[in-house]
Amino acid sequence: MKLDSIYNSLTVPNKTKLALVVLDGLGDIATESTGFRTPLEVAKTPTLDGLAKHSAMGRMIPVAPGITPGSGPGHLGLFGYDPLEFEVGRGVIEALGLGIDLKAGDVAARANFCTLDTKGIVTDRRAGRIDTTVCEAQVAILKKKIKKIGDTEVIIQAGKGHRFVVVFRGKGLEGPLTNTDPNREGLPIAVAKPVKKTAKSTKAAKVIAAFYKQALPLLKNCRPANGFLLRGIAHQPAIPTFEQRYGLKAAAIAVYPMYKGLAQLVGMKIIDGPKTVADEFTAALAALKTHDYVFIHVKYTDMYGEDGNFDGKVKAIEEADAALRVLLPEVDVLVVTGDHSTPVPVKGHSWHPQPVMISGEIAGWDGLDRFTERAANHGSLGIFEAKFLIRLMQANAKRFDKFGA
Amino acid sequence: MKLDSIYNSLTVPNKTKLALVVLDGLGDIATESTGFRTPLEVAKTPTLDGLAKHSAMGRMIPVAPGITPGSGPGHLGLFGYDPLEFEVGRGVIEALGLGIDLKAGDVAARANFCTLDTKGIVTDRRAGRIDTTVCEAQVAILKKKIKKIGDTEVIIQAGKGHRFVVVFRGKGLEGPLTNTDPNREGLPIAVAKPVKKTAKSTKAAKVIAAFYKQALPLLKNCRPANGFLLRGIAHQPAIPTFEQRYGLKAAAIAVYPMYKGLAQLVGMKIIDGPKTVADEFTAALAALKTHDYVFIHVKYTDMYGEDGNFDGKVKAIEEADAALRVLLPEVDVLVVTGDHSTPVPVKGHSWHPQPVMISGEIAGWDGLDRFTERAANHGSLGIFEAKFLIRLMQANAKRFDKFGA
Repeated sequence: MKLDSIYNSLTVPNKTKLALVVLDGLGDIATESTGFRTPLEVAKTPTLDGLAKHSAMGRMIPVAPGITPGSGPGHLGLFGYDPLEFEVGRGVIEALGLGIDLKAGDVAARANFCTLDTKGIVTDRRAGRIDTTVCEAQVAILKKKIKKIGDTEVIIQAGKGHRFVVVFRGKGLEGPLTNTDPNREGLPIAVAKPVKKTAKSTKAAKVIAAFYKQALPLLKNCRPANGFLLRGIAHQPAIPTFEQRYGLKAAAIAVYPMYKGLAQLVGMKIIDGPKTVADEFTAALAALKTHDYVFIHVKYTDMYGEDGNFDGKVKAIEEADAALRVLLPEVDVLVVTGDHSTPVPVKGHSWHPQPVMISGEIAGWDGLDRFTERAANHGSLGIFEAKFLIRLMQANAKRFDKFGA
Repeated sequence: MKLDSIYNSLTVPNKTKLALVVLDGLGDIATESTGFRTPLEVAKTPTLDGLAKHSAMGRMIPVAPGITPGSGPGHLGLFGYDPLEFEVGRGVIEALGLGIDLKAGDVAARANFCTLDTKGIVTDRRAGRIDTTVCEAQVAILKKKIKKIGDTEVIIQAGKGHRFVVVFRGKGLEGPLTNTDPNREGLPIAVAKPVKKTAKSTKAAKVIAAFYKQALPLLKNCRPANGFLLRGIAHQPAIPTFEQRYGLKAAAIAVYPMYKGLAQLVGMKIIDGPKTVADEFTAALAALKTHDYVFIHVKYTDMYGEDGNFDGKVKAIEEADAALRVLLPEVDVLVVTGDHSTPVPVKGHSWHPQPVMISGEIAGWDGLDRFTERAANHGSLGIFEAKFLIRLMQANAKRFDKFGA
């Protein structure tokens, strides 16, 4: 915190344009199963190769050594918010992703429709993965009948398939609460309990119990989705905005709701519309006309990593490399990195430091010809905590005064 | 501490086997005097070479930049206990090494027999390095006559040569106290004084003064060992065990008492018996059947480093490399490192970061063909504090859940 206030006192405005390109789960490892190569090493990346001579490279620890982050902590770190200091519940992130304009203190939960038998036992935690239209219809029933519980406003919004979000807005509420999802079939819906008992979290638990009491009878005749489970129940913490912290007016371009939610959480303007990776970069180019900083999220690298699909990850990198080119003439400081590693051999997120490249007029060439994990080991940035990335971007954009005389 | 509790909350059990191989004082430096090579570079290490392709490498700072650690802080760091937070006195370590089952609050001191002249002046701080049998006979005299001082129990145990250990066990005792060793001949035995004056440390000082008053007359007719000096007077701190912190059932194999003591301090099971390096690894293999984690300590690299014996250190590395092979089929995550550097040109411990190698299925190859200090500079682990090593081992063993959603 003290360091943050020093950075803050040194921050100066100028007209530079900054871009953060996150290829989700970019980092990978070279093992025997991959022929001792990584997707970044195999991919043809003419744009990144061209940038290498104008770039400093390194690797970033998303949270702390050995800790595998979820997308929330991964992105908060990239945005300069220490994930150990700013913890954000999954319900909050999902609600923001669905475009709900959360206020500090709102308690939000991810919800799934599920199937209950006559005794109230969960027989299908995803209600046969009902169609989005069915979900919307059932959410409409709940919305119509339940607007308030005591002095607490209830906001319900449908998502994709069996998913929706519930937000409780009122005085004196606080999370986190335990899930009502029993995590497997054959058990009844669990009771949401305070993780840490306070007056506020106790009230939140009572409101949720009352919500269930009103909502379940309304779904009684719905088949197969006659029940619902809540997870990631948490309140929206008070977080200083990106502009307050860095003096940067920021826009965000992402296809998936969660990443829009994370960007919105720190006060970025969400640019809706883009469907393809190429669209995303075109939209980013437009956004730079009215913003200082743009965050572009590319999901597919992570998806192929999770699938253990080496060739798919290679192609996703190549697609992003091609799409990225349009941005170059308009950006002063460009970062390409991941929010964490999703190595093909791991088939999931991991703690391995993700590679990072900062390009700009005064980044300085590290003598590395390509941007890869193993090249980045030799870079001038070393291995550092992701929360410092934004500070290096500000510095490269000459947006910091000298510290001391 | 907050970070420790996060690691703790993420810890999950599984059936993986972990091994930490410590080649004491492994790290070295390349100077003109060594032909600009290090012992690790010159040694023939087919086992380590074979592991390199399945390993991530880096270097570790034992305590903090520029700080040369003793064996205590060096090992505590490797075990994941921040040596700046967990300070353990040398007396405690020696007592544990002699197999005394210390309890939290016990005050322990290393003791040397010495020679006093008729005026009580120390004329030989090591009493002519008397034989162990003489030491044992004199300790027997003291033990027989002195069992308690007030309400404080006195435990005395002979060590090697002129060395023994005294433990004071009772209510309301605390260290550290200053040494009674005047550090050179020609001075009288010094008075042990509290480093920080508290009721407990004042009581400990009084007990020690009373102990001297009773013990010296008993040694009056002993020649040459008619006195003794106390050093490293400290109490056993309350330390959470390895199993409590990491969920790992740990065994330790070491030949020298001090390293057994350090392992015992954190709750590892000491496997006694091995005399040679080959024996140690065979014992480790057996211990893995009933333990999750095994710590193997090899002393000789450090001894040759202290002697400035380059070829000796090379041979010690080669011996360990050969002995290590037996372990490979049974271990999921293997670490080879030192507790600090003992460079041949320094002839002593040093602060130079020791090289470290983590091998495992998802460690990822850094593109380095051999495990050496200068190769490790290019590794994906970077240069990090030794206290994080255990966290990287846990991560590689897939013993951590994801942090956040």
